[in-house]
Amino acid sequence: MKIKFTKMHGAGNDYIYVNTLQYPIENPEKLAICWSQWHTGIGSDGLVLIGPSNIGDFSMRIFNADGSEAMMCGNASRCIGKYLYEYGLTDKKDIALETKSGIKQLKLNVNSNNTVDEVTVDMGIPTNIHWVKLGEQSLYPQGITVSMGNPHLVIFVDNVSSVNLFQAGPFLENHPLFPDRTNVEFAQILDEGHIRMRVWERGSGITQACGTGACATAAAAIFTKQCTRNVKVKMDGGELLMNWDVHTNHMTMKGSATKVFDGEIEI
Amino acid sequence: MKIKFTKMHGAGNDYIYVNTLQYPIENPEKLAICWSQWHTGIGSDGLVLIGPSNIGDFSMRIFNADGSEAMMCGNASRCIGKYLYEYGLTDKKDIALETKSGIKQLKLNVNSNNTVDEVTVDMGIPTNIHWVKLGEQSLYPQGITVSMGNPHLVIFVDNVSSVNLFQAGPFLENHPLFPDRTNVEFAQILDEGHIRMRVWERGSGITQACGTGACATAAAAIFTKQCTRNVKVKMDGGELLMNWDVHTNHMTMKGSATKVFDGEIEI
Repeated sequence: MKIKFTKMHGAGNDYIYVNTLQYPIENPEKLAICWSQWHTGIGSDGLVLIGPSNIGDFSMRIFNADGSEAMMCGNASRCIGKYLYEYGLTDKKDIALETKSGIKQLKLNVNSNNTVDEVTVDMGIPTNIHWVKLGEQSLYPQGITVSMGNPHLVIFVDNVSSVNLFQAGPFLENHPLFPDRTNVEFAQILDEGHIRMRVWERGSGITQACGTGACATAAAAIFTKQCTRNVKVKMDGGELLMNWDVHTNHMTMKGSATKVFDGEIEI
Repeated sequence: MKIKFTKMHGAGNDYIYVNTLQYPIENPEKLAICWSQWHTGIGSDGLVLIGPSNIGDFSMRIFNADGSEAMMCGNASRCIGKYLYEYGLTDKKDIALETKSGIKQLKLNVNSNNTVDEVTVDMGIPTNIHWVKLGEQSLYPQGITVSMGNPHLVIFVDNVSSVNLFQAGPFLENHPLFPDRTNVEFAQILDEGHIRMRVWERGSGITQACGTGACATAAAAIFTKQCTRNVKVKMDGGELLMNWDVHTNHMTMKGSATKVFDGEIEI
């Protein structure tokens, strides 16, 4: 049986997208592991299934390269917005996407040639924002926790390039303050509208970009009055424009969605 | 403009294959770099162009992920055999393939369902086989050089798993004995018909498998009378069956060729 798929990336975070309305997938965990492999598979950060929804317009399920199911991924949800519109599954420009962490609202930027290059995602309300002390003996004695559904620790530094992420990342991920472990973001304020950020993702290590990490970083920078409520977060894989609405308290994230190629694979 | 391609791998060595009879490619160096990237491209070890030939049945050109052109690749030539037959470019089972290091003869194993799972490639005559001393202070005081068109240094060890390839590889690649640098193979004789091998490729570092490296390893093992002229070389990416013909002196290599998926990309 042949399955059509599309490889897309958002800020360098690449997934294999399958429209399960056309191609039902029975064993996504196994396929995610097999297809994600670089040399012998398609190669990706994981597998995303696009499906119907009873509570929104469409649903998405994300399976990581290790077969585990993720709650939500901002970079993937932008790509889904592009997919749904460009492959004719919808002509809406505002889409309610059902994820494992609830409905996410997508807003598509549609160009004159009817393609979608940027998508804005409502990432919800940042919560649990406060300073934490990490220990005086630590290289980084304090940081700010932010919850975006998943836990983050944001640490402001003068020069993010000089941070040894391989060392500091796992140390802070497993710090006793975080019994469920935490994602870690190192952030350098460039000016009140720009932040340079590098991320250590819980369970994944160093990645090119992290949508919830960008949200947490923006929230921490705005909370500490270092940045305005409209702030760009620059990561290795690309940049995201964050907006923290003063009335609704919701954080939105605007960024690119890029199609790499269409494929067809035998299973 | 849309280009159809096929991703295939031989022993974990994966390339993007394009039939230039249908899709002429003007800038293969640039496309190899761009398409080979894991997160933002198709992801591969490089790009292989299949074309016509005046001196053989077909030609192949191989561009590495860094855009440089390779002379020849045994793993890629097996995949080309499968491609040519299964995509109907030929019904021959013996194919003369023009490469940058001359004509290579392919022999296809065609199954009852008209697919090709294994291909035998005539890799030519191993030359320049002799012992070299690497220095008494070296962890590996001696090895055997073999030329398969490209230079190899084969070192026999008792336990190949315990070799620190990241350290020994670049040290030996750049050893003063080899002004043009060398590929390095660490080989453990399992029995007279089986060798376990790990490779450090000149310019690429650790790879899953190396066709000319498997040839060099078999030649060195047979030269030192540790193995028979029919010997399997097991690498991380897969295994190859080598045969060193006593009459012609040619080394042939038989191994799998696997199609991963078909794709279409915009350029």
